[in-house]
Amino acid sequence: MDSFIQIPKDSDFTMFNLPYGAYGKGDVAAICTRVGDTIIDLHECQVNNVFDNIDLPRDIFNSRYLNDFMALGKDISKAVRQRLQRGLSLGGDMDNATIKNTDIFHSSVDVTMLLPIQIGDYTDFYSSREHAYNVGVMFRDPANALLPNWLHLPVGYHGRASSIVVSGTPIHRPNGQTMPDGGDKPVFGPTKQLDFELEVAFVIGKESKMGQAIATSEAEDYIFGAMLFNDWSARDIQKWEYVPLGPFLAKNFASTLSPWIVTMDALEPFRHVGPIQEPEVLDYLKFKGIKNYDINLTVDIITKNGVKKNVSHSNFKYMYWNICQQLAHHTVNGCNLRVGDLLASGTISGPTSDAYGSMLEIAWKGSKPVLMPDGTTRTFILDGDTVSMHGWCEKNGRRIGFGECDGTIIG
Amino acid sequence: MDSFIQIPKDSDFTMFNLPYGAYGKGDVAAICTRVGDTIIDLHECQVNNVFDNIDLPRDIFNSRYLNDFMALGKDISKAVRQRLQRGLSLGGDMDNATIKNTDIFHSSVDVTMLLPIQIGDYTDFYSSREHAYNVGVMFRDPANALLPNWLHLPVGYHGRASSIVVSGTPIHRPNGQTMPDGGDKPVFGPTKQLDFELEVAFVIGKESKMGQAIATSEAEDYIFGAMLFNDWSARDIQKWEYVPLGPFLAKNFASTLSPWIVTMDALEPFRHVGPIQEPEVLDYLKFKGIKNYDINLTVDIITKNGVKKNVSHSNFKYMYWNICQQLAHHTVNGCNLRVGDLLASGTISGPTSDAYGSMLEIAWKGSKPVLMPDGTTRTFILDGDTVSMHGWCEKNGRRIGFGECDGTIIG
Repeated sequence: MDSFIQIPKDSDFTMFNLPYGAYGKGDVAAICTRVGDTIIDLHECQVNNVFDNIDLPRDIFNSRYLNDFMALGKDISKAVRQRLQRGLSLGGDMDNATIKNTDIFHSSVDVTMLLPIQIGDYTDFYSSREHAYNVGVMFRDPANALLPNWLHLPVGYHGRASSIVVSGTPIHRPNGQTMPDGGDKPVFGPTKQLDFELEVAFVIGKESKMGQAIATSEAEDYIFGAMLFNDWSARDIQKWEYVPLGPFLAKNFASTLSPWIVTMDALEPFRHVGPIQEPEVLDYLKFKGIKNYDINLTVDIITKNGVKKNVSHSNFKYMYWNICQQLAHHTVNGCNLRVGDLLASGTISGPTSDAYGSMLEIAWKGSKPVLMPDGTTRTFILDGDTVSMHGWCEKNGRRIGFGECDGTIIG
Repeated sequence: MDSFIQIPKDSDFTMFNLPYGAYGKGDVAAICTRVGDTIIDLHECQVNNVFDNIDLPRDIFNSRYLNDFMALGKDISKAVRQRLQRGLSLGGDMDNATIKNTDIFHSSVDVTMLLPIQIGDYTDFYSSREHAYNVGVMFRDPANALLPNWLHLPVGYHGRASSIVVSGTPIHRPNGQTMPDGGDKPVFGPTKQLDFELEVAFVIGKESKMGQAIATSEAEDYIFGAMLFNDWSARDIQKWEYVPLGPFLAKNFASTLSPWIVTMDALEPFRHVGPIQEPEVLDYLKFKGIKNYDINLTVDIITKNGVKKNVSHSNFKYMYWNICQQLAHHTVNGCNLRVGDLLASGTISGPTSDAYGSMLEIAWKGSKPVLMPDGTTRTFILDGDTVSMHGWCEKNGRRIGFGECDGTIIG
């Protein structure tokens, strides 16, 4: 599918994608989509009658957050995306005046991408078997790597919403308490084990009520789209603080989100069969159909001098627990969802060491340092390093991607 | 301090209190305070020139949430409270027309109290030594009751904001997975161990930035006021799910908040010296001054037939970690706070068994059932039971209280 907008080879932003985001430029902030390297202002589209056949509230895109738009329901967001696909295609039905409207079309280099959702609650799962296994082997032993509950439920916990920032936001290295190995009292200082976690996050687009359990068969109605997510972690702080109530300061200092919400419609052609679940799960976790997605995921470390090293190439298809199961589990007790809630996958590790999703695993607790092209090594992330995540799907000549999920560590 | 409004004996809402809340009546919802059994609409006060000497934005009280008002800063909220204290006192400076204005004054029985804050992030601590010790004794042994980190940092974790409801909201008994004692596979069904947790929660009234650590000496600037909090818990679900990432579905189905925010100014006369902290804490957790508060806390269980039994009389003064330490710890890694964030204490247990703050402790893991006046017993909370929490401070003839924090279990 071609567009009158030029689309560079290997662009994340083909006509098959049309994700939703929010951008700022001078005093303007609005909802947008992107094709190639062109940002398309959806508020200006609406003002210029592009969406006249769709029942949209006035000023729905004149906002820096997508929440109100998502809450209109999937019929509306599908209609908008289809209208854009028709209008932006080569030989489509946009008139010449619209195509040349510089309020609508902007170069991506001239805008700032904004965090596009007001996040209500953020939940992080722990749904990659390979990741859970690796952590279990490192901190316990191979025979008991997976904890007793792991194969029976998608383990999850609540994270911090206030410190979720958009790609490009600098990340402060956190201070905190740690207990030195063999020590008898804790010490205070900057973390020495700053790590990333390669994750995919899903955005809730439909609310549920307290007391309402969402079945796996209904779960997709509630999911608006997906984003890349880096759940920054301070392993030394985590180790000391996390028993018995889970990670807290080790993770709540920052998480980085990619700026684009890739819709479930765009992801539809990339469904992929998930792993076999054995032992059999309880009834409320059973599902029908194909619920995993084939999303390539990579992590690069880029030094302050611009030296770059790919440290992981994983895939979302490895997830043991799928998003429908996560959502069914999350609500089986009657916990209510709100539009804008974020559900992240947990670190996504694949079966081989080049597919691990955290430095903890890649450098195996510091025992296998990563050699950078400039001769330096990494067991964890240093000040000045940028962690850059990418995600894309590719099949039968169709490619869509998530844009960048980058964060640079400042001391 | 007397008012022209009648104040029943032992009322929580004396002229020393003047807490902030939000009420609804017909189509109206607004910010209010309360004296005796009279609700005072602050929006109507503003419209009727009561606050003319205070620099308040138009319509700041014409809202069902206090967030924007809190964000104006403590100088403003203090001035409003002092103005009300002057105006509502017997022989005060409110004119007769204002005193008789039925848009301003409402009987508490004619209004519905609303959740008065939009909660950003909700954090729950675990700061009562007696509670942590009791849990440790029950699930480990007396010699190792406190975990190694407990005396060095105020353990905390993130909870669910979406399911925090105001006093009076019915609570659904949650379903979930549990592992039967001695079983080898989990079962699904309603929790059999539904518990309350007696807590006090503090509301953040001033934001901080990412990367900014708040010192214990600055912490009080960020705290707007306090509320009662019941952190409902399903112990059987918790036991199976919580390793290694902490409680999730066992707690996120509901928490109940009292409707009133008692200001730090109102609490000021009730400061109380806290427990000695030994071993010495790290520098960032050291503090000067008196940071605990003497707040009586009680829990009653009321059956569906109205039979009532007091099961706990605890006190906030027992807290090992004070709120300034909690806030300093929470932000020492640069985690940012937003106006409307909620920080809860964790279960507040006192040194004696009549002061325990959860059924888990009161009935000691089911081994010491509570005998109700109707001859029935409780080890946990049954369908139809109401858990009713109260909190008040009393000193030198001055009394203030929090109002009720009630929730009834529906099956």
